[in-house]
Amino acid sequence: MWIRNAWYVAAWTHEIEPGRINSRTIIDQPLVLYRTADGAIVALEDRCPHRFAPLSMGRLEGDDLRCMYHGLKFAPDGKCLEIPGQKLIPRSACVRRYPLQVVGSWVWVWMGEADKADPAIIPPSLALDDPAWRLQAGQLDYDADYLLIDDNLLDLSHLSFTHEKTLGLDMPQWADERPRTVPLERGLRFQRWLRNHPPRGFMRKLGERVDVWNSYDFLFPGVFLQRTGFYPAGTADRSDGKAPECEPLFHRVDEQAVTPVGRRASRYFYAVGTRAQDIDPGKLERLFDVTTVAFHEDKRIIEAQQKLIDLEPGRAMLPTSLDAGPTQFRKLVDTMAP
Amino acid sequence: MWIRNAWYVAAWTHEIEPGRINSRTIIDQPLVLYRTADGAIVALEDRCPHRFAPLSMGRLEGDDLRCMYHGLKFAPDGKCLEIPGQKLIPRSACVRRYPLQVVGSWVWVWMGEADKADPAIIPPSLALDDPAWRLQAGQLDYDADYLLIDDNLLDLSHLSFTHEKTLGLDMPQWADERPRTVPLERGLRFQRWLRNHPPRGFMRKLGERVDVWNSYDFLFPGVFLQRTGFYPAGTADRSDGKAPECEPLFHRVDEQAVTPVGRRASRYFYAVGTRAQDIDPGKLERLFDVTTVAFHEDKRIIEAQQKLIDLEPGRAMLPTSLDAGPTQFRKLVDTMAP
Amino acid sequence: MWIRNAWYVAAWTHEIEPGRINSRTIIDQPLVLYRTADGAIVALEDRCPHRFAPLSMGRLEGDDLRCMYHGLKFAPDGKCLEIPGQKLIPRSACVRRYPLQVVGSWVWVWMGEADKADPAIIPPSLALDDPAWRLQAGQLDYDADYLLIDDNLLDLSHLSFTHEKTLGLDMPQWADERPRTVPLERGLRFQRWLRNHPPRGFMRKLGERVDVWNSYDFLFPGVFLQRTGFYPAGTADRSDGKAPECEPLFHRVDEQAVTPVGRRASRYFYAVGTRAQDIDPGKLERLFDVTTVAFHEDKRIIEAQQKLIDLEPGRAMLPTSLDAGPTQFRKLVDTMAP
Repeated sequence: MWIRNAWYVAAWTHEIEPGRINSRTIIDQPLVLYRTADGAIVALEDRCPHRFAPLSMGRLEGDDLRCMYHGLKFAPDGKCLEIPGQKLIPRSACVRRYPLQVVGSWVWVWMGEADKADPAIIPPSLALDDPAWRLQAGQLDYDADYLLIDDNLLDLSHLSFTHEKTLGLDMPQWADERPRTVPLERGLRFQRWLRNHPPRGFMRKLGERVDVWNSYDFLFPGVFLQRTGFYPAGTADRSDGKAPECEPLFHRVDEQAVTPVGRRASRYFYAVGTRAQDIDPGKLERLFDVTTVAFHEDKRIIEAQQKLIDLEPGRAMLPTSLDAGPTQFRKLVDTMAP
Repeated sequence: MWIRNAWYVAAWTHEIEPGRINSRTIIDQPLVLYRTADGAIVALEDRCPHRFAPLSMGRLEGDDLRCMYHGLKFAPDGKCLEIPGQKLIPRSACVRRYPLQVVGSWVWVWMGEADKADPAIIPPSLALDDPAWRLQAGQLDYDADYLLIDDNLLDLSHLSFTHEKTLGLDMPQWADERPRTVPLERGLRFQRWLRNHPPRGFMRKLGERVDVWNSYDFLFPGVFLQRTGFYPAGTADRSDGKAPECEPLFHRVDEQAVTPVGRRASRYFYAVGTRAQDIDPGKLERLFDVTTVAFHEDKRIIEAQQKLIDLEPGRAMLPTSLDAGPTQFRKLVDTMAP
Repeated sequence: MWIRNAWYVAAWTHEIEPGRINSRTIIDQPLVLYRTADGAIVALEDRCPHRFAPLSMGRLEGDDLRCMYHGLKFAPDGKCLEIPGQKLIPRSACVRRYPLQVVGSWVWVWMGEADKADPAIIPPSLALDDPAWRLQAGQLDYDADYLLIDDNLLDLSHLSFTHEKTLGLDMPQWADERPRTVPLERGLRFQRWLRNHPPRGFMRKLGERVDVWNSYDFLFPGVFLQRTGFYPAGTADRSDGKAPECEPLFHRVDEQAVTPVGRRASRYFYAVGTRAQDIDPGKLERLFDVTTVAFHEDKRIIEAQQKLIDLEPGRAMLPTSLDAGPTQFRKLVDTMAP
């Protein structure tokens, strides 16, 4: 029931260091990732076909990977090059190679049929070293189904409650009105004005009151690409409730990706930042820290929610007007081929 | 297969402190308990109907409880009072409220159909601050089916073996003869004389030899209400083996309750004490400590027994004359509606 | 699906100390082992037939074992001798006694029908105090099926890879050629010459080059009895590739036994040594340590292999010429009656 024909974020590019072998799991499939001499990243199935030892316990030999149980050697394309003490290498002696793309600072792996892998559909996230932005990255492991984390990101009304003392502090009452929702090919776009908001902390310099334009795309499997622009109060009305056309006073960016590891395990990649001119590194650190605290607030409640769901599987939840985003996205997921 | 139409001990009253939200599980049902301003204790299902976040991670607002995932608010009767950003509150938007009673120092919750909850059938346990008694309370968690703990309490012959160096020391050979057993509506009554016993420790002051009258009721789901009276030697014969009519020299009380948490999880509440005049606080502490050690002796053997039972489910046990109590009680449980 | 009619190593003899009660599990059966006054070792089922408390939590009374839950007492033959407070001892009140043999320093237990237990088929391992040898013993617990450990021992080509920095260092390329394999009644014999090998470390005194004769029997369930003889270079050719007839310069012995504890749990017993004249105790210690490190290398890779196998049960492995031993042995196991 996993959706295989899809791109998944396997790692931050900086996690895959030259000369090191990395083990990752996506939709219950073990992967081994490493860099070849030219810096390209390779993703192979992390299972020697011979006796199923993990190749991630193996040895890099140039661009090749040797299993250190009985010594079979594989090329970066997954082809077996050597079986010790044996001349004949059967054609079936290979490991699966997964299509892989780097976009921004994320390593994307295609988990399904290789000939259907289209790099054009990978969401356009930022590189952490993009000079126009100042960004800081983190990650978090969840003991929960990735779809529960998606639900969370598809309904930001929880900022007012789960994050009342962190992210919710800096923003108007998220739960009071609903964003405009636009369907996308592999997800949804959410947009809203939060009007007449008094900025806090170092953002007080923006003025007494600001209008905040919040816009994010949410794409399968759990990619959250958000821009939050702070504008002089009155901009929302002048824009007639639509997207503003001028540059914001302050521009925050949040990019996140949820990767299903297994049925009850997910990995959450996130980057927080602003335009380069908006913040100094010390303040970015503070912004990152409060965001990390907030993400642990989510993790705590979502992992508890997962346990209560598992206690009575199949029990129906109460629909509310808050759930438009999660409901539409789950319908979209249901239409995707497994 | 749980017996729902029954009262279960959820907590000691002192565990439910004003202003704090408490999470408990009984027969696999998550409960949230808290006190309203008037001091009354409320038990609700610990699961917001909206997305199944635990209400015990919520916030008390006066007498109401707000879910801190998306902000739904509930009254102490379980009715939903608010859904943020939404005017209409559907009638189905409520959490289950469980009938609750305080008797003595135990908080009792009725887990079944509310209209069948009859407070009159709750066993009459002591309050810990009853001036006629001096009592100390504890509790213990078991990784075992509650019925195995019941079995243990329904056959005190094990005192001579499991507790040979603790509780068994202070008493004659429990295993040598069988108590008189009388059926009760929801349990069994056990009574016996233990004759001509030499008291130990601080009880030596009672004389060279005493007769001990031991009597306890054991009631579903695992309530153990025991009185142990120490009398001058000869009282047993003078009483013709029946209950003594005079006051004892020394009167010990043991009140315990076993609560099924899940299939292999139980909570064990216990209070130990004597009449106020029988003991000073320091000696009560010693009595409590040795009792606690003894209960860990039970826990160790019962959890090991549970593992051996689970290794070969369905394997038949060897019946002996020791098992009259456990066998009768299990039959009673089998007749109770699920 | 366990093979019951077989001898299994339960313990080293020195683990079963006089006056102590030992708990072991073999093929998911709980056993209790202890010594009677005459020093003989008894193996009973570790489960009181009354309420399934473990007898290993009981008390030794002379040669008898008393259950410390309700006091039933059992003779070393498993017969029940006492039920407290009850005169009649039913004939069914007994625990199973397992046939037991000590051979060398291993305690062997027969897990199947007692009348089929033939001590003559127990493999002839050394006693640790055999004056002709100097031996050191250890053991290791695996979270893996015993057959995966067997596979490992049935194909020593992995020495060149898994143990490249430990056991593989001291030997030629194990993976380059295949040993001669001879079927035995309950296993396989492997023999090979490793020619023209330069000895390392303290073995340099043997000469510039040696020929190494490696021979081991591998017997159900996982008994590995190996002798490795070091000879002057040229001996292999002079012996025409057969077993050498002269005494070696240096003679190493490795004796190991794998015992299935449960489906994914095994215990690995091992002894390492040489002829008494070949080594001093300090060097034996070093030999033992490097061997122990190597066995942890195996454990790490085999436990990882087990996890990958369990991720996709039933997936076919790639056959190679390395697998002759494992394949033949698995076929033999398949023919053994459950």
